[in-house]
Amino acid sequence: MSEPKENPLMEKIVSLCKRRGFIFQSSEIYGGINGFWDYGPLGAELKRNVKELWWQTMTRQRDDVVGLEATIIMSPQIWKASGHVSTFADAMIDCKTCKGRFRADQISEIPCPQKPSKMVSECAGEKTEPRAFNLMFKTYVGPVESDDNVAYLRPETAQAIFVQFKNVLETSRQKVPFGIAQIGKAFRNEITPRNYTFRSREFEQMELEFFIRPDEAIEAISSSVATPASKDHPGEPQPNWGWQLWHQYWVEERIKFYGNIGLPRTTLEEYWQKPEELAHYARATVDILFKFPFGTQELEGIAARSDFDLSQHERFSGKPMGVFDDELKAAWEKLPKETQDALWRRYYENRKKYLVKSGVQEEAAAKSATEDANGLAKGQYIPHVIEPSAGVDRLILALLCNAYNEDQAPDEKGKMETRVVLRFAPCIAPVKVAIFPLLKNKPDLVAKAKAVRDLLRQHMNVFYDEAGAIGRRYRRQDEIGTPFCLTIDFDTLGEKGDDLKDTVTLRDRDTMKQERLKIPELLPFLLSKIR
Amino acid sequence: MSEPKENPLMEKIVSLCKRRGFIFQSSEIYGGINGFWDYGPLGAELKRNVKELWWQTMTRQRDDVVGLEATIIMSPQIWKASGHVSTFADAMIDCKTCKGRFRADQISEIPCPQKPSKMVSECAGEKTEPRAFNLMFKTYVGPVESDDNVAYLRPETAQAIFVQFKNVLETSRQKVPFGIAQIGKAFRNEITPRNYTFRSREFEQMELEFFIRPDEAIEAISSSVATPASKDHPGEPQPNWGWQLWHQYWVEERIKFYGNIGLPRTTLEEYWQKPEELAHYARATVDILFKFPFGTQELEGIAARSDFDLSQHERFSGKPMGVFDDELKAAWEKLPKETQDALWRRYYENRKKYLVKSGVQEEAAAKSATEDANGLAKGQYIPHVIEPSAGVDRLILALLCNAYNEDQAPDEKGKMETRVVLRFAPCIAPVKVAIFPLLKNKPDLVAKAKAVRDLLRQHMNVFYDEAGAIGRRYRRQDEIGTPFCLTIDFDTLGEKGDDLKDTVTLRDRDTMKQERLKIPELLPFLLSKIR
Repeated sequence: MSEPKENPLMEKIVSLCKRRGFIFQSSEIYGGINGFWDYGPLGAELKRNVKELWWQTMTRQRDDVVGLEATIIMSPQIWKASGHVSTFADAMIDCKTCKGRFRADQISEIPCPQKPSKMVSECAGEKTEPRAFNLMFKTYVGPVESDDNVAYLRPETAQAIFVQFKNVLETSRQKVPFGIAQIGKAFRNEITPRNYTFRSREFEQMELEFFIRPDEAIEAISSSVATPASKDHPGEPQPNWGWQLWHQYWVEERIKFYGNIGLPRTTLEEYWQKPEELAHYARATVDILFKFPFGTQELEGIAARSDFDLSQHERFSGKPMGVFDDELKAAWEKLPKETQDALWRRYYENRKKYLVKSGVQEEAAAKSATEDANGLAKGQYIPHVIEPSAGVDRLILALLCNAYNEDQAPDEKGKMETRVVLRFAPCIAPVKVAIFPLLKNKPDLVAKAKAVRDLLRQHMNVFYDEAGAIGRRYRRQDEIGTPFCLTIDFDTLGEKGDDLKDTVTLRDRDTMKQERLKIPELLPFLLSKIR
Repeated sequence: MSEPKENPLMEKIVSLCKRRGFIFQSSEIYGGINGFWDYGPLGAELKRNVKELWWQTMTRQRDDVVGLEATIIMSPQIWKASGHVSTFADAMIDCKTCKGRFRADQISEIPCPQKPSKMVSECAGEKTEPRAFNLMFKTYVGPVESDDNVAYLRPETAQAIFVQFKNVLETSRQKVPFGIAQIGKAFRNEITPRNYTFRSREFEQMELEFFIRPDEAIEAISSSVATPASKDHPGEPQPNWGWQLWHQYWVEERIKFYGNIGLPRTTLEEYWQKPEELAHYARATVDILFKFPFGTQELEGIAARSDFDLSQHERFSGKPMGVFDDELKAAWEKLPKETQDALWRRYYENRKKYLVKSGVQEEAAAKSATEDANGLAKGQYIPHVIEPSAGVDRLILALLCNAYNEDQAPDEKGKMETRVVLRFAPCIAPVKVAIFPLLKNKPDLVAKAKAVRDLLRQHMNVFYDEAGAIGRRYRRQDEIGTPFCLTIDFDTLGEKGDDLKDTVTLRDRDTMKQERLKIPELLPFLLSKIR
């Protein structure tokens, strides 16, 4: 937690989050626990709104994506297949003198615990060679702490989707191309959690695995694979899209989503990983970055993962992960022999390349790839995957940073003062509308205000506040990003005549302008603004 | 998983859940992992609906409850304070011969792994004495697996609420009485997970901790504490309610909630724990039970937990957990001396009783209780708690069991056949409305059906299906509990004239009756039914 404190803007945001109940340190009364953060009342609402909008956008508004909710603890075999057991590790060095353990790549930045004037790399302590330290949290399932009973807290939600792929396919009436979406907690035993909630040990992910036909199948069916014309939005999905267009499509869909929840394109950067940066199974990866006060950092990665994941689980579980595609079968039979051969060969080469990379011996790989390519000719393949994978907590932090704003506004006496305002998009704001009776000691005003509250509450999150001057009540709502405030005054009660009767003052957070609306107009007006 | 199989009704429900994608075994392709279950596409929607309705009912529709979203891994000190480290354990016996480990209370029911003809209690193997086996999953946070770094996966969500009580109080503009609600995962390393998803090792809870004044404070403020007249609903909260009425209130609120999501009172039992069954800190506990096919079992417990929880965390953290109540302070000063003395004495006795029970020595307890009672006279106290605590997974199972139904309905040719139907309350149904074009090879029908789908989709979860005879499509929806189906036919297109143009056939799942509605009437009609 040192870095944000060195950044004045982050310091203000962290302080606001604590003061107004967005984010608390986990277990604070016991001195906290490094890398774990709780969401207070407003943070919990903000997070619920963001997750709900993601779920709506990614599953309920589409015909081609369904949801899944899998467990955090799964069979440990999954993490062998995914590579996490063997490679999800940081190199660590132990100091035999001070008994400290340090990340090998950080020893020249970390002061020696015994002689803080020197860095660990320079101090006299006797060090071990670097050793791999796995970042998965380990536990034991069942009463015996034996190797047989080891289990891990999932370090990502994606794998659960891959292992349930066939179950979902067989029960959901979907056909490739289609996706499976999941929101859930994941855990990484980071050596150095940092940047407030940005890199924490317990976090939440929103992941979509979108399964597509291999390009060879597309070419067989549609005679060619559409080529990406530019980095612009490729439009609505077409049958002749291969992995490149699907990948571009999801990059643009995700950026559109961020725009819809209040992160304009100018706050984001799109980073296309260079070939040498790609994971060995990835054909392309785009990182969507946000300009945080502490640096430009990743919000989401969108990877074209080929058929790596399902293939690994097929090999490790011995259960077939392929699908049968009757369109492919029918199309293949009508192809000229040369085309069949060319497609067979390309599929064969790709499969063999995967198998060899995954450690299968040359000869066995050739045999297995031959079977796979023969399968393709009969309409069978292992789907490829496009994976848009977003971190909820870092997104919440980005939304808070982006919303934080200070401007000048007059106080009760007309004197200008600094106003802190969170300019959340109304669709994610924790409170949509605050409702104030002008005075709390006038029962008629209070009763009317409560009636308005009850009218709106069925449809949106409201906050009722009767304490203090109206100006102070506005400031409190500005600071938590409430887009609208309603004041019920004597005019509402009809004291100035029928014209103003049953009208209320609606005040806009951003423009600070006030207008009078009739009570029956409130609900449609607000609903149109908060969606 | 043996028990459900022995029960024909459970067998059908388990089979339906797998077949239609409500529930899958976690990690199934790797042989599963005992006590862990995944929710497929329909199960995930059902669970989301139930959690959303709980959150709406418990927080957003009320002024006096706010939310929280805390981490699963918290400071291990919390579980010392709560008693989980020392007492959340089963007694286990090891067999030195077969190396098995068994629950001490089950050795006469479990067959010996080496000689299955005998039970563990009768076999020749040499057994250890029973030893406590803690049910919390243990892990290590940070790079060193030392005692200092032990952490647990939370066995309940409640404690996070208690440790953040002051943070929430200070940031949320709430005053006692008020509540903090949380939904989240919890983990218990059950020795024998059983009854399908009913008792699993990873599960989700929906918990409310509702903080109230101690009865002595109520009496000081309102001159007397209202007494419960009967077990009927006590009505809307009143200032003179003590813990008994608040407890009754929450029991009734929770039963009302179950009614609203489709579990009528007749399917539930209310069990008031007998004094000898109560946990030592509880003043009363009501279990709400559901009549599962495998027996009548607990869905939710509603406990009056006195001030035990906050007091424990005050003692273990050294941080004050009391609140200052200006109404109490003002009221106390006006009380006759005898009343002050009597209330002082009662509060003193209660606090002393708690402290002695918690292991504080007599003399120290008397001193501390004196300070507490002196605090009361100045308006300070530790709030008491009413805790409605529900298990999401067992509730989902109850909803599935309750919804499962078979009746007789005519097939396409008019012959009666058995129809499987899930009679979900529309508000929890995973799909609210299915939309069918009469024929899939008529572009006009398909286009119209998709237009209706897009119209409704903004407001509810829809399912579009064009495959197979209408009767078969109805059956598919019946089996997943979709309350309404819409068919777009040639009449919709206006082929029988203007009267029927832009009308669709709406079919009701339960009555199987069909009626024609105009398209513009659909949305208001459906919205009124699904809420």
